[in-house]
Amino acid sequence: MAAPVPGIVTRDAAQTPLGPDLGHDPDLAAVAHVISAVRERAPLVHCITATVSMGIVADGLLAAGARPMMTETEAEAPVVTTVADALAVNLGTLSTDAMDGIPATVAAAVRDGRPWVLDPTAIGLAPVRTPLARRLLDSRPVVVRGNASEVLALVGSGTGGRGADSLSAPAAADEAAREVVRRTGGAVAVSGATDLVLDAGRSTLVARGTSQLTRVTGTGCLLGALTAACSVVAEDGFEAALAATVWMNVAGELAAERAAGPGSFRMHLLDALDGVGAEGGR
Amino acid sequence: MAAPVPGIVTRDAAQTPLGPDLGHDPDLAAVAHVISAVRERAPLVHCITATVSMGIVADGLLAAGARPMMTETEAEAPVVTTVADALAVNLGTLSTDAMDGIPATVAAAVRDGRPWVLDPTAIGLAPVRTPLARRLLDSRPVVVRGNASEVLALVGSGTGGRGADSLSAPAAADEAAREVVRRTGGAVAVSGATDLVLDAGRSTLVARGTSQLTRVTGTGCLLGALTAACSVVAEDGFEAALAATVWMNVAGELAAERAAGPGSFRMHLLDALDGVGAEGGR
Amino acid sequence: MAAPVPGIVTRDAAQTPLGPDLGHDPDLAAVAHVISAVRERAPLVHCITATVSMGIVADGLLAAGARPMMTETEAEAPVVTTVADALAVNLGTLSTDAMDGIPATVAAAVRDGRPWVLDPTAIGLAPVRTPLARRLLDSRPVVVRGNASEVLALVGSGTGGRGADSLSAPAAADEAAREVVRRTGGAVAVSGATDLVLDAGRSTLVARGTSQLTRVTGTGCLLGALTAACSVVAEDGFEAALAATVWMNVAGELAAERAAGPGSFRMHLLDALDGVGAEGGR
Repeated sequence: MAAPVPGIVTRDAAQTPLGPDLGHDPDLAAVAHVISAVRERAPLVHCITATVSMGIVADGLLAAGARPMMTETEAEAPVVTTVADALAVNLGTLSTDAMDGIPATVAAAVRDGRPWVLDPTAIGLAPVRTPLARRLLDSRPVVVRGNASEVLALVGSGTGGRGADSLSAPAAADEAAREVVRRTGGAVAVSGATDLVLDAGRSTLVARGTSQLTRVTGTGCLLGALTAACSVVAEDGFEAALAATVWMNVAGELAAERAAGPGSFRMHLLDALDGVGAEGGR
Repeated sequence: MAAPVPGIVTRDAAQTPLGPDLGHDPDLAAVAHVISAVRERAPLVHCITATVSMGIVADGLLAAGARPMMTETEAEAPVVTTVADALAVNLGTLSTDAMDGIPATVAAAVRDGRPWVLDPTAIGLAPVRTPLARRLLDSRPVVVRGNASEVLALVGSGTGGRGADSLSAPAAADEAAREVVRRTGGAVAVSGATDLVLDAGRSTLVARGTSQLTRVTGTGCLLGALTAACSVVAEDGFEAALAATVWMNVAGELAAERAAGPGSFRMHLLDALDGVGAEGGR
Repeated sequence: MAAPVPGIVTRDAAQTPLGPDLGHDPDLAAVAHVISAVRERAPLVHCITATVSMGIVADGLLAAGARPMMTETEAEAPVVTTVADALAVNLGTLSTDAMDGIPATVAAAVRDGRPWVLDPTAIGLAPVRTPLARRLLDSRPVVVRGNASEVLALVGSGTGGRGADSLSAPAAADEAAREVVRRTGGAVAVSGATDLVLDAGRSTLVARGTSQLTRVTGTGCLLGALTAACSVVAEDGFEAALAATVWMNVAGELAAERAAGPGSFRMHLLDALDGVGAEGGR
């Protein structure tokens, strides 16, 4: 795990005993108002995401109490996004339809004052999505969520990840994340074994979760979409990113306790997103 | 729940005790011959469906004993649909490929006398799929399946749903559904907490199922595809739509009893589609 | 089951008692070094696959210890495949993007000396993928994996499958498979109730697995992608195809023991891909 950074709160899963008193999980308690507000508001989130992750993104948003909407053509996505509460854009597949549809859809969300989240999946080497992601920063996403390699590639450092992998630890992307914040005025969430969430004034490391989250496709994409859902009810991008990060990681911890392998982990993760912090749940 | 409509049989889940004698479920008994025939015939169903729901549609058809086939380009879909027993068209994603491929694929199915089912997902606001869905009515789908908002939008009333959501109760779409029936000569199934199935001469409310079905992506799309499978062996569209609706809803009830959340509900739903009404099953 | 073919080793699941001593499964023992090497190397596999099977392909590769990458446009797929260890090409959907992207992506993999696997899903009737699959043989895939109908259609015999179905037993494709081997210099795996794996010098029938594998979408696609993962660490295509076939089938047997239906079978299959042959696992 990364060494504690001065001025940054580090929370360690090992310091948080699992048990029947999980309602008292301090990380969860700090973001419980956002989780409850998502469940009450049931925000409609338009998602343009990697094809392979569509299932877990949609089912994960539903489990969390939000409502997903997915279409990506230039002809329809900008129109239907006008009735959504937030927009999540993930570059994971970047089909021709998505390539054409994303700029107009982001513009529609911005025009209507909807918060939107950018997940620059697998940028760096890929020749189309890399410049696209950089241009999209001008549309000021409320949160940029990616792994360290992707955040580095976003500001022109490093060579990007290989697929959804990250070759760098979140702390290595600290400077790059601050550069993104300067450009967007929003927040950045850098995912990894320890997650880093920061904006212009705050910075937190979240040392929760489980490596099992890396054994299921699309958990990162889901985190981006969940962040968009949280951004509808949260104070700002930082609070949204922090709430979504804790929500996913605590759900992951619960799922890991129950799972016999990556197949059952995926199922328990969706159950836990529904149950985390709910009455009778954790 | 909607008040009983005169002349319409209302079945209430509360009147159907769950227990070991579920083989005697009267709703299930009324459609058991269709379910058995699907399992025996194993109809091949070509599906053009929302990308996000492809997994549950294909796995759900397989669990039900049918066989799915999925491709949507104009170059191939019309050709391969000629070996299918039925066609299910869902407008949920409407990629450029699907936009181009759907009209020719429907025409091929019609030319070969195959039954086909239209699921006008999310029409209303969306500018391409709304006129497309209305034009497709001329190709006389054996069943149109949608939520109330979508059925209203199909005949030009209302503003359509938001994504897969319905803002209206099925009964509110009764007149619109009858208008669709007049145009297609087939049946309409309006999904909701209570489902409405009708054709020119019959109308039934099905008050079965569970709200858990709305917590998993693609259950509506699967219902449309399952209706197409049933249409291969049923007397007509009405019988196919009623059988598929009862099958899905009873499977949903069984799954809800066993599930700990939406993740495990999805798994149990697929198991229950396989087990419902089978020897040793419900 | 197909009758034993002279000179071909037939292994029968019925002769392999299930129990705590499954570590001694002789089929598994014969390929355990490949399975272990995949887990150690964690090969990055670029996959162009049927849209409906993307989820199980990606989650299955992750469960097996490999790492999936998926994008299919001509603009990006050939570039990102250069950092992959292997390429798996499945023609199941053949979107316009994939149609354009596949030839250049295969060329990039060949140029870089990466092994690649061809899965000619549903060729025969389909007018675009059939000639494409035949042309791709010139790029010498290390393994061609398909059902008997597809392998027959690849060399111009038979009329191909219907969707993912096979109308022919693997043994019926023996001659066609040998013709493919003559053209590619690699191996061919013909999937069915009994699987046939052969190359220029060797031929093996694998009578393992369970019919439950045909009740879940994409298990064949996953087998193709798993073969690509194995080809990174195996001696040659034959060893890769045999290892992947045994791995999938033994995992399927384990999952079938635990499953209550096709929904839970899918989950247990992913768990079993992770657990098979691992310490404390089978």
